[in-house]
Formats: sequence, C-alpha cells, structure tokens
Amino acid sequence: MSDKFVVNNKGITAPKGFKANGIACGIKESGKKDLAIISSDKPASAAAVFTTSKVQAAPVLISKEYIEDGIIQAIIINSGNANACTGEEGLKNSVLMTELTAAELKISPQNILVASTGIIGVQLPIGKIKEGIKDVVKSLSVERGNSKNAAEAIMTTDTFSKELSVEFNIDDVLVSIGGIAKGSGMIAPNMATMLCFITTDANIKNNLLKNNFKKAVDLSFNMITVDGETSTNDMVTILANGLAGNKEITEGSKEESIFCEALNFLCVELAKMIVKDGEGATKFIEISVENAKSFTDAKNIALSVANSNLVKTAFFGEDANWGRIMAAIGKTEVDINSDLVDIYFEDQQIVKGGMGFLLDEEKVSRILKSKEIKVKIDLKNGWDKAKVWTSDLSYDYVKINADYRT
Amino acid sequence: MSDKFVVNNKGITAPKGFKANGIACGIKESGKKDLAIISSDKPASAAAVFTTSKVQAAPVLISKEYIEDGIIQAIIINSGNANACTGEEGLKNSVLMTELTAAELKISPQNILVASTGIIGVQLPIGKIKEGIKDVVKSLSVERGNSKNAAEAIMTTDTFSKELSVEFNIDDVLVSIGGIAKGSGMIAPNMATMLCFITTDANIKNNLLKNNFKKAVDLSFNMITVDGETSTNDMVTILANGLAGNKEITEGSKEESIFCEALNFLCVELAKMIVKDGEGATKFIEISVENAKSFTDAKNIALSVANSNLVKTAFFGEDANWGRIMAAIGKTEVDINSDLVDIYFEDQQIVKGGMGFLLDEEKVSRILKSKEIKVKIDLKNGWDKAKVWTSDLSYDYVKINADYRT
Repeated sequence: MSDKFVVNNKGITAPKGFKANGIACGIKESGKKDLAIISSDKPASAAAVFTTSKVQAAPVLISKEYIEDGIIQAIIINSGNANACTGEEGLKNSVLMTELTAAELKISPQNILVASTGIIGVQLPIGKIKEGIKDVVKSLSVERGNSKNAAEAIMTTDTFSKELSVEFNIDDVLVSIGGIAKGSGMIAPNMATMLCFITTDANIKNNLLKNNFKKAVDLSFNMITVDGETSTNDMVTILANGLAGNKEITEGSKEESIFCEALNFLCVELAKMIVKDGEGATKFIEISVENAKSFTDAKNIALSVANSNLVKTAFFGEDANWGRIMAAIGKTEVDINSDLVDIYFEDQQIVKGGMGFLLDEEKVSRILKSKEIKVKIDLKNGWDKAKVWTSDLSYDYVKINADYRT
Repeated sequence: MSDKFVVNNKGITAPKGFKANGIACGIKESGKKDLAIISSDKPASAAAVFTTSKVQAAPVLISKEYIEDGIIQAIIINSGNANACTGEEGLKNSVLMTELTAAELKISPQNILVASTGIIGVQLPIGKIKEGIKDVVKSLSVERGNSKNAAEAIMTTDTFSKELSVEFNIDDVLVSIGGIAKGSGMIAPNMATMLCFITTDANIKNNLLKNNFKKAVDLSFNMITVDGETSTNDMVTILANGLAGNKEITEGSKEESIFCEALNFLCVELAKMIVKDGEGATKFIEISVENAKSFTDAKNIALSVANSNLVKTAFFGEDANWGRIMAAIGKTEVDINSDLVDIYFEDQQIVKGGMGFLLDEEKVSRILKSKEIKVKIDLKNGWDKAKVWTSDLSYDYVKINADYRT
C-alpha cells in the first residue's frame, strides 16, 4: 500500500468513459453469466500480455493481431467455452464475435479484443453469442453493478468474482485504474484460464503504457502459480482512454512512478485473489527468495518451491517439512551454495546454513496452522530478490480435477 | 525383449563374484531391514550417475569423489536416513561408513561407494550402523535370498522390492547383469530417493562402460517421473568385475551392442517398476512423442505431459481429457505446430490435426479404465522420438505426502 494512491472497489467502470456489463446468453448449461463487454467512449491506448503456450486459442490469435496498432475500444469476452483447438471454424467465430460487437457499438472490429475461457475443443454456440452481444450492448453502463456483472460473466470454476480499483491524483486531476480478473481454476475437460482486464482514464503514451504494463504483469500475474500449468487462453490487458484529462504522463516523471506504483499494486492484488481462489486451495503461501545473484535466479527458485507437489502437500498437511523446500531449491539450474541457505516461516528461522534449525516447534506449528504463510529463503549469494504466491495441494484439487465426468 | 538375451530374476548376485546382503540394524523404528552391502571379489570397473540437485547429500559427495578413478569394489547403503542437509558431521559419517566397511572387507575405503535414503536433516545413528556393518559383512554371500535382502534393505516407502537380472552369451561365455532398485516414494519429512545398483561380470573397458551406462540411464531412469521431483540423494551405479571371462568388449563390436541391449532393457524394466510403485499410483502411463525435431524436443514434451498435474488427475479420473494434453504439449519452449498434432490412446486416435477426434467413446472409456495406458503424441514436424513413463495423481498421493505428521 502507499500514501500516493487510494484503494477502493469501484470496479472497471470507475475510470471515466468506461462502460461494462455481463449477462447469461446460454453458453453455460448452469444458466450463469457467460458473456461480457467492456467498452470505452473513445479509442484507447492498449497493451496486453498473452499466453506463451504454443497451443493458442483462436481468440488469442485474433486479439494479438488486432492489438498490434496499440488502439482498442472494446473487449468482448465469453466464458463456458475456450474456443481452443477448434481450427478454422474457431478462428472464424472469434472474428465474428468482434464483428458482431463492432456492429452494435458502431466501431471497427479491428479495435476490439476477444477473449474466451472454458471447455476446450468444442465449437462456440455462435447463435447464442450473437443474440447475447445485442443484449449486453443494450445494457452497457457505468453503474457499479455492471462491473460486478462483467466480473461474474468471465468466471469458470472461480468461487468468487475478482474486482479492484485504485485512485490517485496527477496535477490535481483524479485518475483511476480498475480491473476484473478470473482465476486459474481448471475443470475437465475445460482448461480454465487466467484472464484480467484493466481500464484506466490516465493519459499516457502507448509505448510507456506497454513497457510499464509488461513490468507490472511480470511482478504479479507471472509470479503466481496454482499448479504450474499454462493455459491456451491466458490474456491480461489494459486500456487507457485518457479521459481523466491529466497532462500526458512522460517517461521518467514523478507521475509515471505514481501511475506504476498504483498499477503494480492493482495487478499484485488481483493476482493474489486468483491464488486464493485456486482449486482446492486451503492455504495462501508467499515465497520470497532473497540475496540471489539475479531476479531470474530468485524467481526460478521461488517458482520451483511454489510448484513442488511435495512442498504443496506438506503445507496442506501443516508439516514443517524444510527438507522438501531444500530439495526444491536444489533442483533448478540456478547455481547456489546449499551450505549458505537460511529458511524462515514468518519470523521463525527453520533452516540455518542448509541445516535444520528448529527453535520453537510449537510456534512453527502455530504458523503452519494459519491460512496465510510467508516463507523466506535467503540464498546469501547475491543482492536480488523475487516474490511468488501459491497455494497448497489438497484432496480437493485432485477431486475437482479428476471427478468431473464421474 | 530380444532373442539376444534371457530375462530372469536371479538378482544382483547372479553375475559371478558378487556377494550381497541386507539386514535390520535399527535405523528404521519399524525394525525393517535398513543396511545393505554389495561387494565384488575383485575391484570392478565402475560408472555412476548422480542427482543433478544443487543440494547434494553427504553420501553423494563422497561417492562422486571415490568413483573418479573408475574402480569400486563394494557399496554400503542405508535406508531410513538420507544423511542430507547434515553438514560436516554428515560428511564425516559417510566417510566413516566407507572406512568401517573397508576394515571388515579388508579393502581400501576409496574403493567403496556409499548411499543413503530416508529422512532429511537428521544425523545418522552411526553406532548402530557400525555394528550393522559387521553383521552384514559376516553374512555376505552369493545366495539368491541375499540379493532379495539387499533389495529390501534399500526400500523406504516402496511397497515391493525391485530386482531383475539378464543373461546373454558373448563368444560362448555366459555373461550376467543384475540390478536392485528403490523407488521415488516420498514421505515427510523424508525425501525418498531413486537408487539403483547394477552388477555385471562382463569384461568391458571403463570408458566404454561409462558411455554406455550413461546412455542406458538417459533412456530409462531419466525418462520416468512420478511427481517431477529430484532428490538430494539419487544415485544409479554399475560395477563390472570381468569375472565372466569373456574377451574384453570393444567399441563398435557386435558384443558391445548385445551388452547395451541387455543393459538398456534391465534399466528400463527397473525404472518402470519404480513408476508402478509411485506413491498413490493407480495407473501406469507410457507417453511416446514421435516425429519431433530432436530427441530433446520429444523428451521435453513427453515430460511436460507426464508432469502435468491436470493430465495426471484426469487419468486418475479416467477422463479422456485431450485438451489438457494439448495444453501440456503447448507449454514447453519446444517449437511445434499445434495444427499438426495427433494424439492416440492405445490404438484409438483422439486428436487429429490439433482438434478432437473421438471415433469410439466407449472404446476410449474402456482403455482409460485399464491399469496401463499408452499415449502416443505425433508432432509431425521431425523424425525423432522419446518415451517417458509416469503414474497418475490420486487422493493417496496427497494423503501419503500430507498426513505423515497428523
């Protein structure tokens, strides 16, 4: 948190000139909301980060193309169907979604992003989506409840909707950033996806927005892991329409640093919500790696620990199993000296110089019983650090992911 | 299998001049066997592959040093305690184990390998081991039952002991290879370990043994995964004492190819036994990746699929979830064209050109109900291939790894 910005929960319609809504158009058999649109009153400067998977869903391929010029005015999102592994017909359907939205909003299809999440390998029910788009556009508004509707319409196995907004002043002009996200829950034969849509009324040059958004994503959405999986549909995007009316934010300015601090905070908090809603998660675990030779080294070790099934099951079992953490630290390609490693659970040191160091077993056991646990790993061989967030591995993870069809 | 060699189950004392035994010396509270020695009547040519972890247990560090000259005559192994993360005292204890064994066998400590598996971070009960070594050496013999005792004495959470031997003729001389192994079961706060000890009476030059052993390990023990974890103590080693009396096997000879074929078979079969005994495993899954640009590409994709928690829980749930397999194929750094990918369960094609292709749902469902499932992934962008073996991810995996202390 910071004294430079205020955190509130006004959603993605908090920034000036953004409307949104989410409805049920019948993609999900449950009758739950499954179609959302976010639109800006004027074309916005846009940036996005897409999945690094070599198997990319149709909407990812289309959105990548349409965002190339850095100008986007609206986003159409459906849940319940990922439109992945759907070939030519899938691509046509993603294009059609942008065209149908464009026709209703009276803007260019190339200024629209499209995102999908849900079942893999099944063609979209495009008729339902066509009708749905008309309904969503009719009810687009800046109402607080509409951001919530949109946040709900992008959910798959998420158990709660994820929204946040922050506000700050630039030259006495109020600037807002709002975001909605959906989590990395996975359900057979779906591969749910990490999606996040951020709006801001800040006036900022596109290349500055791009660079700073990339950095914010690297420190937030790229630092969380539920089960080490990467989806075919992951997409994180930001639209900046400039309607706050602030003087354009320039590189290296105090204003840029305030904007980045607020954006980073928003991204980290939304990313943490995703981990907390991880499938079957009973614990939220922060893993900090300190005094590494580089950020990449620190990140690789933190992710190795965070993705270790043995470490995750130990946290589920509330077991002070530092041997598994040492093993996970050792298995990456990062050059470390295991005789220097210290490990802490919260403020309790449990490993000193690579060996067990259990001062107060009762206190450690109390720490492990809590819902949120901070693990600190001090490599003592450099000056860089990284922080990663993860969940434990529970019976329910196996249940949710094995029992869908049975 | 091959007509060039015969598979039997005579254990590690099948090759001429090798003795073994395993006893309970009191390291394990259960009273089960926990100390084994394998010895050769004369110094043997030796090769080994050790864990790639940066956190290496004391016995790994000592054994690496002692095997450098390629000459080993005996191996001392304990289970119940990994002697990992034990600092200077741990190193001293590993050296002491070789010295005590050397004194009893009247050979040099530097000709002895030492291996440990079990709990991490606790010093060895060296007094018990000292007495135990005397007892094991007294009862060393070539008896079939003694190989079994040794195989049992290296177990941790393994549910069955793992032994195999093969025989073949070289110039009308009978040559044998025998092996014992223990699996990758993990139990808190233990990190059990993959250990394998192979004996052969073949007469073969050390550099030829080393190169061929490395290749055999790469195609067997390095191609299995239960949960993607690498231990602090993994060790696979071979001793070749030449007592079969065959003419020395030379590079590029027909004899070399027979030896390698038999050795590869033995290693693959022992590796498969380890996967079948994986913690909580209910399925044994073979993943072949074909027509990749290189062996490394094929291996990386096969391991990505084999290590995916989503794929593994789907197999546990007997769910034909090809979308998860596509996603696991896509998430590596290997350059593939997802539109070319075909996937088969046994002889049933389920993905064609990156899209679902479910001809006979009933047959696929029958395949998924069996204990052993073959998955073939055809990338259609090259000529190389790789085969990996893995297990599913079950409730019991979580139970075994979470519930140790509760």
